[in-house]
Amino acid sequence: MSRIKDINLWKSGERKVEWVKNFMPVVNTLENKYSSSQIFKGKTIGMCIHLEAKTARLALAFKNCGAKVVCTGSNPLSTQDDVAAYLVREGVEVFAWRGETLKEYEENLEEVLKREPDLIIDDGFDLTVMLYKKFPHLKNKLIGVGEETTTGVNRAKALLKDRGLDFPVVAVNDSRLKFLFDNRYGTGESSIASFMRNTNLLVSGKNFVVAGYGWVGRGIAHKLQGLKAKVIITEVDPIKALEAHMDGFDVMPMNEAAKIGDVFITATGNFKVINEQHFYNLKDGAILANAGHFNVEIDMEALEKIAVEKREIRDNIQEYKLPNGRRIFVIADGRLLNLASGDGHPVEIMDLSFGLQFLVMKWLLEKGKELPKSVLSVPEDMEKELAMIKLNSLNINIDSLTEEQLKYLKSWE
Amino acid sequence: MSRIKDINLWKSGERKVEWVKNFMPVVNTLENKYSSSQIFKGKTIGMCIHLEAKTARLALAFKNCGAKVVCTGSNPLSTQDDVAAYLVREGVEVFAWRGETLKEYEENLEEVLKREPDLIIDDGFDLTVMLYKKFPHLKNKLIGVGEETTTGVNRAKALLKDRGLDFPVVAVNDSRLKFLFDNRYGTGESSIASFMRNTNLLVSGKNFVVAGYGWVGRGIAHKLQGLKAKVIITEVDPIKALEAHMDGFDVMPMNEAAKIGDVFITATGNFKVINEQHFYNLKDGAILANAGHFNVEIDMEALEKIAVEKREIRDNIQEYKLPNGRRIFVIADGRLLNLASGDGHPVEIMDLSFGLQFLVMKWLLEKGKELPKSVLSVPEDMEKELAMIKLNSLNINIDSLTEEQLKYLKSWE
Amino acid sequence: MSRIKDINLWKSGERKVEWVKNFMPVVNTLENKYSSSQIFKGKTIGMCIHLEAKTARLALAFKNCGAKVVCTGSNPLSTQDDVAAYLVREGVEVFAWRGETLKEYEENLEEVLKREPDLIIDDGFDLTVMLYKKFPHLKNKLIGVGEETTTGVNRAKALLKDRGLDFPVVAVNDSRLKFLFDNRYGTGESSIASFMRNTNLLVSGKNFVVAGYGWVGRGIAHKLQGLKAKVIITEVDPIKALEAHMDGFDVMPMNEAAKIGDVFITATGNFKVINEQHFYNLKDGAILANAGHFNVEIDMEALEKIAVEKREIRDNIQEYKLPNGRRIFVIADGRLLNLASGDGHPVEIMDLSFGLQFLVMKWLLEKGKELPKSVLSVPEDMEKELAMIKLNSLNINIDSLTEEQLKYLKSWE
Amino acid sequence: MSRIKDINLWKSGERKVEWVKNFMPVVNTLENKYSSSQIFKGKTIGMCIHLEAKTARLALAFKNCGAKVVCTGSNPLSTQDDVAAYLVREGVEVFAWRGETLKEYEENLEEVLKREPDLIIDDGFDLTVMLYKKFPHLKNKLIGVGEETTTGVNRAKALLKDRGLDFPVVAVNDSRLKFLFDNRYGTGESSIASFMRNTNLLVSGKNFVVAGYGWVGRGIAHKLQGLKAKVIITEVDPIKALEAHMDGFDVMPMNEAAKIGDVFITATGNFKVINEQHFYNLKDGAILANAGHFNVEIDMEALEKIAVEKREIRDNIQEYKLPNGRRIFVIADGRLLNLASGDGHPVEIMDLSFGLQFLVMKWLLEKGKELPKSVLSVPEDMEKELAMIKLNSLNINIDSLTEEQLKYLKSWE
Repeated sequence: MSRIKDINLWKSGERKVEWVKNFMPVVNTLENKYSSSQIFKGKTIGMCIHLEAKTARLALAFKNCGAKVVCTGSNPLSTQDDVAAYLVREGVEVFAWRGETLKEYEENLEEVLKREPDLIIDDGFDLTVMLYKKFPHLKNKLIGVGEETTTGVNRAKALLKDRGLDFPVVAVNDSRLKFLFDNRYGTGESSIASFMRNTNLLVSGKNFVVAGYGWVGRGIAHKLQGLKAKVIITEVDPIKALEAHMDGFDVMPMNEAAKIGDVFITATGNFKVINEQHFYNLKDGAILANAGHFNVEIDMEALEKIAVEKREIRDNIQEYKLPNGRRIFVIADGRLLNLASGDGHPVEIMDLSFGLQFLVMKWLLEKGKELPKSVLSVPEDMEKELAMIKLNSLNINIDSLTEEQLKYLKSWE
Repeated sequence: MSRIKDINLWKSGERKVEWVKNFMPVVNTLENKYSSSQIFKGKTIGMCIHLEAKTARLALAFKNCGAKVVCTGSNPLSTQDDVAAYLVREGVEVFAWRGETLKEYEENLEEVLKREPDLIIDDGFDLTVMLYKKFPHLKNKLIGVGEETTTGVNRAKALLKDRGLDFPVVAVNDSRLKFLFDNRYGTGESSIASFMRNTNLLVSGKNFVVAGYGWVGRGIAHKLQGLKAKVIITEVDPIKALEAHMDGFDVMPMNEAAKIGDVFITATGNFKVINEQHFYNLKDGAILANAGHFNVEIDMEALEKIAVEKREIRDNIQEYKLPNGRRIFVIADGRLLNLASGDGHPVEIMDLSFGLQFLVMKWLLEKGKELPKSVLSVPEDMEKELAMIKLNSLNINIDSLTEEQLKYLKSWE
Repeated sequence: MSRIKDINLWKSGERKVEWVKNFMPVVNTLENKYSSSQIFKGKTIGMCIHLEAKTARLALAFKNCGAKVVCTGSNPLSTQDDVAAYLVREGVEVFAWRGETLKEYEENLEEVLKREPDLIIDDGFDLTVMLYKKFPHLKNKLIGVGEETTTGVNRAKALLKDRGLDFPVVAVNDSRLKFLFDNRYGTGESSIASFMRNTNLLVSGKNFVVAGYGWVGRGIAHKLQGLKAKVIITEVDPIKALEAHMDGFDVMPMNEAAKIGDVFITATGNFKVINEQHFYNLKDGAILANAGHFNVEIDMEALEKIAVEKREIRDNIQEYKLPNGRRIFVIADGRLLNLASGDGHPVEIMDLSFGLQFLVMKWLLEKGKELPKSVLSVPEDMEKELAMIKLNSLNINIDSLTEEQLKYLKSWE
Repeated sequence: MSRIKDINLWKSGERKVEWVKNFMPVVNTLENKYSSSQIFKGKTIGMCIHLEAKTARLALAFKNCGAKVVCTGSNPLSTQDDVAAYLVREGVEVFAWRGETLKEYEENLEEVLKREPDLIIDDGFDLTVMLYKKFPHLKNKLIGVGEETTTGVNRAKALLKDRGLDFPVVAVNDSRLKFLFDNRYGTGESSIASFMRNTNLLVSGKNFVVAGYGWVGRGIAHKLQGLKAKVIITEVDPIKALEAHMDGFDVMPMNEAAKIGDVFITATGNFKVINEQHFYNLKDGAILANAGHFNVEIDMEALEKIAVEKREIRDNIQEYKLPNGRRIFVIADGRLLNLASGDGHPVEIMDLSFGLQFLVMKWLLEKGKELPKSVLSVPEDMEKELAMIKLNSLNINIDSLTEEQLKYLKSWE
């Protein structure tokens, strides 16, 4: 039994999933490898995720490897109803629809837990928290959790500190293959794609200001540089600032950059990075966007306060008129740029993340009861295994160390 | 009197035009410079164009400089009805709506000519040909035509050869600022933007095959290289092939490239560049797209013939199954990639083109009766004037030659 | 009989020539193709060239294809005595040594002409002018001249205009393969190599000002951009300035750039591009260099006049102290940067030029008597043949047009 | 009293040091800041270093801040006698000359220790080891050591483990500003500069194989990519291999790469990375070079064994003929490429390293007696201070966190 919008939407969902399947070789490989042995047979996997094509593909991979799968959305607005319909048609239980109320959202979480999952994939830790609150008897049955986000991992750590954990929670987000690859390759491209799609403007020759030269900022800055934009970096860390300088970027404080920039993209992990003081210095027609996790990097509250006029000038773009007569354009209200009317991260990037989730579920299944009841990192060997699967899918072979070389390297230490 | 879909759609059209206005400094500058003197006062300008925000902006600039403007669409499918409504509300006469029949399309052309234009902006030469066919008495009144496309220029040349022209036709498309800037900067970016939008796939690390290393092919190849794709070039000219090699690309025949490529983009100006023979060599899941003017570079006819199955797998993407079991994905049926569900060229690129059209209309107005009744190039000085306006809008100053330097340079020749 | 410094130096010359031979596949291929038929048998080729390893390789290729070859240097200072010795040992007649006087230089030209050449390769047109002045009886025997430089071509054109030519002079320098490839690929790399070698300074992050965005300036600017320098372009042509902007460079007048730049490289073809007015604005420690053909782009005369002190601070680098106390460093006295204590253009680039010279000599041999007695361009087919030889040496195959495609392309026009 | 080659060589040494001084703003700033207070007054600093212009500049900075400085070379072959002469003339005691015997080298170390240094800058740990062996009574006087190299740090750690240390040894090489900046920015550029200088060959279009995608390999690969070479990466770590793929490089095992590459640069930190098996697969004319610390990455021993002929074909380049008739060229016998007939790292890169050494000496002076007697890392604050000095010298300001932002960031954890 499922609860979704409309089962008849499945056809469109099927196409979406089949499209992404073509570009998810890692998940496909794992599915092929473990479907004959039905390794998840007899196990129930509960998934609380953004229900769209790429996550649906992962759910089906679990199902095809023997698991009973129950899904709910991790956000009341992100569920794609056609994809949900297709999942149901394929035998996955789903409790989610676009536009569900907060109450309905919680009821849906409960439905998943009522299926008594052995393994959980969580995206923000809501499902696990609900388990602790309303289904404490499941604590012993549950083998473990794979948590996809930084926020969720932080909540898990807080829980661990406060009252301990009763099962291992694997911090998938902290792995190099997830964190670095997402930020450097995924966010860079998808943010620029979103900028181009939402504005119809040219990148080359334009002054972009990227706030923050961490992994996200670097990803964006380097891709913009490759498209021949002029990129200005703002930073608070002098070492990163010097790296940006050596990488060919202009570096200056936001106060100065504000007067020069045509487009601003924040990626600092901090808040009020572009604030009231800067708004007054912006050129007429400046465009603001955010690529950091939270929508606080641009001080939208201050902007709403000082603006004398506001209107949607283009889909996803708000125009604010300031007292000095200048207009400022804000994309997606300062929320994540690469999600603004887009499909989020490129398929291949999510394939790496979800391949890792698959291996984490398998690891929990096989070793879960022996693992520490704590927040765990993804083992480095698992990351290497995954990278190797991806390389194989690209027909890329690499060298391996000879006995002699291994010995040489060891003798060094 | 106008004939459009629905005048009440104007609000949405207004927003679209106001958005692009922010990024069209060249047309804005020209409008500001010539609106007080109302230089087009008493003149009627007939425009046959793709009716969307950027062209609408040009029409309004003419109107604000005194012209009476009458518009029709240059393609029955490209008219945006909200933009048309806004134009009408602003006092432009419009005869166009999305989805008009061929008969209606021709009636609309006639409506424009019934206004007896002094100047024509044509996009494919349909309006001018209609004038010769059904309104021959206008030949003497008409001062001249600015033709936007290569196709239109070719038709004008054929007409000139067959029976002479009765007024000058200016080949706007042949100018450096139109041709080079469109192809190198506009097509490169907008093709890649369209690829990312339509597929949700990653560019970096992927094998792209770009067929043709002319201006369009270079534009695309260099932007892909900047995003860290691996780019293979196919060429028939050994000198261009050697340039591609020296620019860091792999060069090989299409037969070999077919086996390696993940994505293929044709930009040769030729036909059957990817043909039946190549289809059988493609990898399962290969993606085909075209950035050349005509949709004949990929031999779609042959593909339709040999495919055993076909379906739309994603918006704008057709999946073909071949007898060998492999799938091929074709974006936008092999029509121009950068228009596939996109907004076409970036605003700033069209601003240069339309600034040129403005100057051409002014030139015809002032000198048209003295100019040869032939197909004319845009004078180099006009291009330099335009480039200077654009540079000024960017607050870029440049050097000028001293008397002494001018003399030095001349003494050389 | 030859006249050189010392025949015993041959061993070192041999190594130099053998080194470059490894990277001159085009000349090697032509030599292999035509040595068995000894196509130049019975003919004497007079060469007036910079006598170093790459030109020596060309001389030997002619010799191995049957020619009698007589060489002299095109500059009293550029002859490498060990290479000259090796040539003599291999059976080429040579009249050249490093440090010859002007009188000796002219005597050496005469020695070449006394051998009554059938074909001439000239580098600046000195040999041909000497023929007209002192050996007018050779005018009828001479089949033709291949001229390597722009200066020489200009002198040939002046001669043609004044009194006509008695044989064809082929302007090798004007060909795409010579002019474009030299400037874009050769000068760019070799100028930067020379900068790094002569200064021991870092490129990345440094402010470079490149004066002129022609082919040389572009070559340098793009390579600097690739190394992550910050590049400022100065220009007098607004269209080129706009291209530079779109290519991601900062564009400004030299007056402004003077205050910002760390390193300046002129490439305009003009004179006094950096002049007295700019010198006073330069930062303390600014470095000046020139990549244009003549050493007049930096106004060295003015600099010498205003400087209060001057010394060689490092090999090839002069330090000038200005009245304002600031120091300016000038590399190689403002002469061609890529020749400053370097080996000039990369071997592979000269291989293309010299392959073209070989084909030009063959063309003159076969058709010279039928060709117009004028300054001739290199035929496009010859350039394509050459490009194909180079591609073959790289194992690169390219596509060719089918009958059907040829017909399609023609039907267009 | 000093012992050098010839005091009369000082003039040339002076020019060399004055040249680099212009591009060492960090050391200059520190010197200016601390010379008035003469912070090193009464202290003796013993330096065991490569005696050339950049290290000489550091020695003089210490002297000008009050120290008595005694220098010796860290390698019998790297001393520049003119620089040594200039140091002596400026009041530094020097015991070093080019070509000293091993015995003389040790005597010179002893001379330094006879001056009873308070502080030591070591480069390989020879001076410190000599202190333990022959001058054990100095152990208590000595405040501490700054060690520049990885090798030296390893020796210090071994000593610490075996018998403890009697003073702190600061591992300057492990700092981000030294390690990352040297490898990414310094080695990349200087290796390519050396390749171009030593071969006179073109980079663009050439197939380079870079073995190892660590920091050195990345530095080289990215600079080569920027110059439009085609770069192949070999790796043993699948995650690094996947990064290389995503960064636009071809990735394959050395066995395959051997057949394709024109130029090979090893940067793995391992040994026998190019070995006998690969030699036989190389193309005729392949060029081998090494950018890793030790000259064991190319198996030169095996190459010497299998070669049937060997000669120096060009300065710094050996030609080996293999039994299969092919020739292989090895630059600098497989020792560090960027030192082959070059000046080593760019001046600005060493300025960062030496600025750090200055701060380390100051730290030891002020806190040395309180610091643990162990191998210490450079404190992060010291790195930030240094980065800030460098940014200031570039006139780059950066943002700093507000109170509010600091609080926000903390609340996160």
